[in-house]
This record gives sequence, C-alpha cells and structure tokens, in this order.
Amino acid sequence: MEKKKSNISMAVIKRLPKYHRYLGELLKNDVDRISSKELSEKIGFTASQIRQDLNCFGDFGQQGYGYNVKDLYNEISGILGLSKDYKTIIIGAGNIGQAIANYTRFERLGFSLDGIFDANPKVIGIRIRDVEIQDIDNLTDFLNKNKINIGIICVPKNSAQKVCNALVENGVKGIWNFAPTDLIVPEDVVVENVHLSESLLTLTYLLKDREQ
Amino acid sequence: MEKKKSNISMAVIKRLPKYHRYLGELLKNDVDRISSKELSEKIGFTASQIRQDLNCFGDFGQQGYGYNVKDLYNEISGILGLSKDYKTIIIGAGNIGQAIANYTRFERLGFSLDGIFDANPKVIGIRIRDVEIQDIDNLTDFLNKNKINIGIICVPKNSAQKVCNALVENGVKGIWNFAPTDLIVPEDVVVENVHLSESLLTLTYLLKDREQ
Repeated sequence: MEKKKSNISMAVIKRLPKYHRYLGELLKNDVDRISSKELSEKIGFTASQIRQDLNCFGDFGQQGYGYNVKDLYNEISGILGLSKDYKTIIIGAGNIGQAIANYTRFERLGFSLDGIFDANPKVIGIRIRDVEIQDIDNLTDFLNKNKINIGIICVPKNSAQKVCNALVENGVKGIWNFAPTDLIVPEDVVVENVHLSESLLTLTYLLKDREQ
Repeated sequence: MEKKKSNISMAVIKRLPKYHRYLGELLKNDVDRISSKELSEKIGFTASQIRQDLNCFGDFGQQGYGYNVKDLYNEISGILGLSKDYKTIIIGAGNIGQAIANYTRFERLGFSLDGIFDANPKVIGIRIRDVEIQDIDNLTDFLNKNKINIGIICVPKNSAQKVCNALVENGVKGIWNFAPTDLIVPEDVVVENVHLSESLLTLTYLLKDREQ
C-alpha cells in the first residue's frame, strides 16, 4: 500500500505518531471505521489535512466509507517502522534515564530495554525492571556482542558526544538524545532530540505572547 | 527593540530556545560578538535563516560587526519571557514527575518548584529537593493560596484532563503536559506537550526511511 515515500515533509512525519495513537485508542474501543471528518474532530487536524497527510503514503480511505481503523492503524504502524522490534539501551541512569527505563509503555510498542549503563559506582549493579545497571566501561564490549538498534542518551551535556561516538562506532544507527546538546553523527545515523528546556521555553514564549 | 510580534510562525518560535542555548554557551565562554556565519556554523542553521529568524523580532545585527552576544542573549531571553520568574508545580510524582523535580537546570532559568502533588499515599510526604509531595486533594486549596504560573502534568493519561481542569479553573495559564494525551483548554491557556512516544516513533520512522 505504501506508494510515495520520498520528500515527505517533517511536519507530516511528526503528525504520524499522533494518528497512530488516536487509531490505537479507536481500536481499543472497538471502532471499525471512521470518516476523515470524525477523525478530524477527535485529533484536531482538519479533515482535508488528514486526507492530504495520509495521501502521502498511499490510498487509504474509501469515498463514502471512510477509513478502516484496523487497516489504517496497521499501515501507519508499518510506515512508522513498528512492524519490527527494536533493541534499546539507556546510557546514563540519572533521573531521566531511570524514568525512561521504568516506562513500560514502550515495550508494548515493540521496544525492549537490553541494557543500562552509567559511570557512577553508586548506581552500577542496581536493577531497574530486571535490567542491571552496568559500568559504562563495558559499553563497547556489550555493543560488540549485542546488536542494538537505538541508544538512549541520558548523560550530562558534556559527555553526550563521547557516548554518542561510542554508540555510532559500534553500529548503533538510532540515537534518542535527552542531553541538552546537539550531537554530530554520520549521515547514516538518525538522531531524535528531546530537549526539555527548549520545550519549556516554547511554553514561556507562548505564555508571554498570550498576555500581550 | 522588539518590534514585530504577530504572525511569527511556530517554526521560528521553536528555534528561539536553541538560539538562547547557544548564545548562553558563547557568553559562558566569554565570546563578545559573533557573525551570523559563525553562529550558523555552530548552530547548524544557514546564516540567512538566522538573519531572517532574528529579523522577525527586531534589528539585532550590525553590518560588518555581527551580533553582540550579550545583547542578543538578553533580547532573546526577553522574547522567550525569561525576564520574569515562573512558579511551577508538578502533578504526578511518578518517574517522569520525579525526574523533572530533580532537574536543577530549570531553576537557573528562573523557574521555581513550588509544589508536588500525587494521589498515591506511598509517596505523599516524601521530599524531593526540599519540596514535600502533597496529597492531590490539597491541589485546589493550594492554588487558591498560591499564584502558580505553570502546571507540569505527569499523571497517567486517564487523569490528565481532570488535573488540567483543576489547574485551569484555579488560574494556571501554562500547562506543560507529559501525559500521552491531548488536553482541552480555554483559549487563554497555553499547553506545550512532551509526548515521548511520539518522539520515539519519529525516530523509528526516520530509521526505517534511512534503511530503504
């Protein structure tokens, strides 16, 4: 079903996980089909936006019938790369690292947590959901023995690039970065940032803007 | 200096905190001035993008001189609403809530943590950085006695709207939402979402896209 793949804008891509979430909820509530108008009322994008977005990837809807929820959910799962499982490791077992490690939501989507690494002797050896925090000195060795898809970087800003390099040099192609810095990676590696301060400052900008 | 305020696109707004972060680092390293070209090399946007972005808010640069780092940092701080302090509370002292509570970075930017609330008797009474976790039943009473600017929602999806309503009804105008759901708020309230699953699914999309 996936027809058109190239030149999809980041704006469309960023909306796909939201479609996925809403369709997942509809599925859970046993909704079989939905029109772009009804989906629009739930999700908050216009119906024409929805048709246009989904059109980037193929012909999903049927005139007069709407979308088959299960089919569309499965298609979007596939587009998002969720038809395969992902092995992840977390580097940095501070607050954010531990929070991510404790987040069971990701497992249901097909992400396994295969390792946690930290440099702090006080946390090495502690278990989070059956995964023991290892010494970061074991990282390279671990990566050589285990094929890891995604490295989740939760170390302080100053060590982030070094950790990133170790991941990349040992075959990790996906970096989910929580450190407040921008990482430099080769072209075949993908970085997705969660910069919390930047999100918070967007909020204060909008607050200020609203007050004026 | 701030001249043009309306019709700034969200894309520009989302880039401002990044300018703020880079300029803050330059300041820390005692850099007095910088050209848009040099800034471009650091930040990864093109020089013309930078000039265009900053032009939305006023005339900052000077031909042949570049930008005065301290002035530009202060201007952007002001634009981002950082010339005032913000009182925040966290609702939901689970993993993410505790991680945010422990994040000292925000204090340096002028955000104070004034309260943490949870419904779980096991965590009520525990202190995180001198702030005692209170029973969520005290929330309304607390908001009536304290002017809070930002409510940070870290409760599960199903309770998020209810918590959001309590915040909004008691005068909170800014919501930083970590619950994986979209909140409904009146027009004078601003919501900024951190949807971790959506960020992770953007990463898998890009990984899949890169492999093809």
